[in-house]
Amino acid sequence: SIWTLFLRGLLLPSYPPKMKEGLEFPSFDGRDRVLNVNERNYKKALKKYDMMCLLYHEPLPSDKELQQHILTESCDLCPLGLEEEGSIYVFKDERVIEFDGELSADTLVEFLLDLLEDPVELISNPMEQRAFERMDEDIRLIGYFKGEDSEHYKAFQSTAEKFQPYVKFFATFDKGVAKQLTLKMNEIDFYEPFMDEPVTIPGKPNTEEEIVDFVNQHRRPTLRKLRAEDMFETWEDDMDGIHIVAFAEEEDPDGYEFLEILKEVARDNTKNPDLSIVWIDPDEFPLLTTYWEKTFKVDLFRPQIGVVNVTDADSVWLNMRNDEALPSAEELEDWIEDVLSGKVNTEDDDDDDDDDDDYDDNDDDSSDEDHYGDDDDDD
Amino acid sequence: SIWTLFLRGLLLPSYPPKMKEGLEFPSFDGRDRVLNVNERNYKKALKKYDMMCLLYHEPLPSDKELQQHILTESCDLCPLGLEEEGSIYVFKDERVIEFDGELSADTLVEFLLDLLEDPVELISNPMEQRAFERMDEDIRLIGYFKGEDSEHYKAFQSTAEKFQPYVKFFATFDKGVAKQLTLKMNEIDFYEPFMDEPVTIPGKPNTEEEIVDFVNQHRRPTLRKLRAEDMFETWEDDMDGIHIVAFAEEEDPDGYEFLEILKEVARDNTKNPDLSIVWIDPDEFPLLTTYWEKTFKVDLFRPQIGVVNVTDADSVWLNMRNDEALPSAEELEDWIEDVLSGKVNTEDDDDDDDDDDDYDDNDDDSSDEDHYGDDDDDD
Repeated sequence: SIWTLFLRGLLLPSYPPKMKEGLEFPSFDGRDRVLNVNERNYKKALKKYDMMCLLYHEPLPSDKELQQHILTESCDLCPLGLEEEGSIYVFKDERVIEFDGELSADTLVEFLLDLLEDPVELISNPMEQRAFERMDEDIRLIGYFKGEDSEHYKAFQSTAEKFQPYVKFFATFDKGVAKQLTLKMNEIDFYEPFMDEPVTIPGKPNTEEEIVDFVNQHRRPTLRKLRAEDMFETWEDDMDGIHIVAFAEEEDPDGYEFLEILKEVARDNTKNPDLSIVWIDPDEFPLLTTYWEKTFKVDLFRPQIGVVNVTDADSVWLNMRNDEALPSAEELEDWIEDVLSGKVNTEDDDDDDDDDDDYDDNDDDSSDEDHYGDDDDDD
Repeated sequence: SIWTLFLRGLLLPSYPPKMKEGLEFPSFDGRDRVLNVNERNYKKALKKYDMMCLLYHEPLPSDKELQQHILTESCDLCPLGLEEEGSIYVFKDERVIEFDGELSADTLVEFLLDLLEDPVELISNPMEQRAFERMDEDIRLIGYFKGEDSEHYKAFQSTAEKFQPYVKFFATFDKGVAKQLTLKMNEIDFYEPFMDEPVTIPGKPNTEEEIVDFVNQHRRPTLRKLRAEDMFETWEDDMDGIHIVAFAEEEDPDGYEFLEILKEVARDNTKNPDLSIVWIDPDEFPLLTTYWEKTFKVDLFRPQIGVVNVTDADSVWLNMRNDEALPSAEELEDWIEDVLSGKVNTEDDDDDDDDDDDYDDNDDDSSDEDHYGDDDDDD
């Protein structure tokens, strides 16, 4: 059973009745299913429910006495390791998982459902292997083991539980699949998002500690997609206060083309620990699109790449003209080099408007004198 | 400019403040941006705004006098062609588009943003062509024309506006792309979802009327994906009161495998006008997952296929055992044949529980004596 402690704001609106049955969204029936967790009942609650979703909230503003009461209770929950008020934590199998994604009912429920799946998915035939290979947006591990009883598989499985649902774990017991993936017995491969080739975890067979260490060391990819389920966690993992952000709609021909160029750049620079590009598909964040266009002063109907300062949301964008071809991978790499060296940054243009600034930025109107977006990419 | 008339229930909850800037979801600032449209102002409103989103609502329940007032106003809007109270209509370029999707802010805003895109996307290089080929979930048309000034392109473009955003229209002016797609000048190909080969619209060059007729005739695909943006429209388009429904998570190895089998069945039966399978990816409807599992008595962590009666949500499901291989395309086709002939239906089991019933259903516990799910599919 799952026990969910929802934000009152997350309670679902009721939908108009439809004539045809089979697609009824849940509407609030008036029954309060939210439990108050406090010092007296938290141990019992943790025992009773396989999985528990807890909102660690600020004191309610309505009742002064009640406020004091809940504040005390919140402090009493600190032994559980809760740090951030206003955060949502999920308790499952002795683990506390912080939910740091979009605060919408959809995203939270999907997160909870993901946590109910098996931590390791088995790949047993060529079709399932193809499914595995298609998931190139995710950090994935796959190991080849003798069977379910193998102690090495068990170490892999308990590691998987620790990273669920953020890192995907797969295993195969099938010789043919292992051969196709060039996996030897007890070997584990780590796939970085958007990379063609995996990296093998050294020193097989691996202990749980070795796998955990390896994942933690390789966890920040060169190109990562912003996902609703952990968007705030990703955004907080900035590089010295900035993010290189690329907007591209995968379902749009232009966006797809730009994304392929980005992947090429990421593959060429996968060894660079200072580079991590955040790819945002605006299609997946319709409620943020207008805000981004206003804040960053960019047109999100076209692909864009820029540098964003996460302290003040100040930004500089590579000028790509509407009527010209997209930049080539080489041009993008030159620009990224300028970003990493500090030549392109969000501060330079704040005081002066000198004309040797090659890039478009959000503090003045865009200049057409940029050196990028020329047509050497045409064929 | 866009003028949106939102349901009050759709107003967004405010989110807790985050330290890092750049991902601020809009929160309601207290300003009422909803305009009351009535007989006196609707013409002016239609003129003023390029696009207008209107909720055609029932009388508000709070004020009797106001109720009467609004009721009258609603009737006065009937000349606009609005039929269903509680529905949302978008007015754009002399067109009225009913929004028949999930009533969530995300889905509605995405729908409005889609309507702001160009109705025809241009495909101008091999990479964009690859993007076009990957969109196999959508109904797509692509035409090869001389250029933007071609009268045939213009007919194509104005047809595209009529079907936006439900049917995707693409065009190319590039000889190389046209050759790759085996398109002759002024030829238009129609791609049914999940089919490898397109169908050419006969009698090129085509008039707007010919294209509209062709799309309307071919609009219901053999396999269609349930999408949040038009889920109620799809569900209302049942076949004699029933839907063949397949649940499969594309991101899951099992689900992917089952989906590939389904596509094979759809390709084999694309000429059958009586067959239209609705594919639902439970991942995309987290809020409905529990409801479906309860209503249909199926486990959605596994792929499922069944028949649903849309009048009462009664259903029968093909028994696929957890420990066995998925059915082959042939086995699925046999089952579908039994559904179409009425041999498998949702009513038979309602009165009696005779043992010659091959299929699992939601009225009694599943029997293990089914003939499907055997392992002749293993290799």
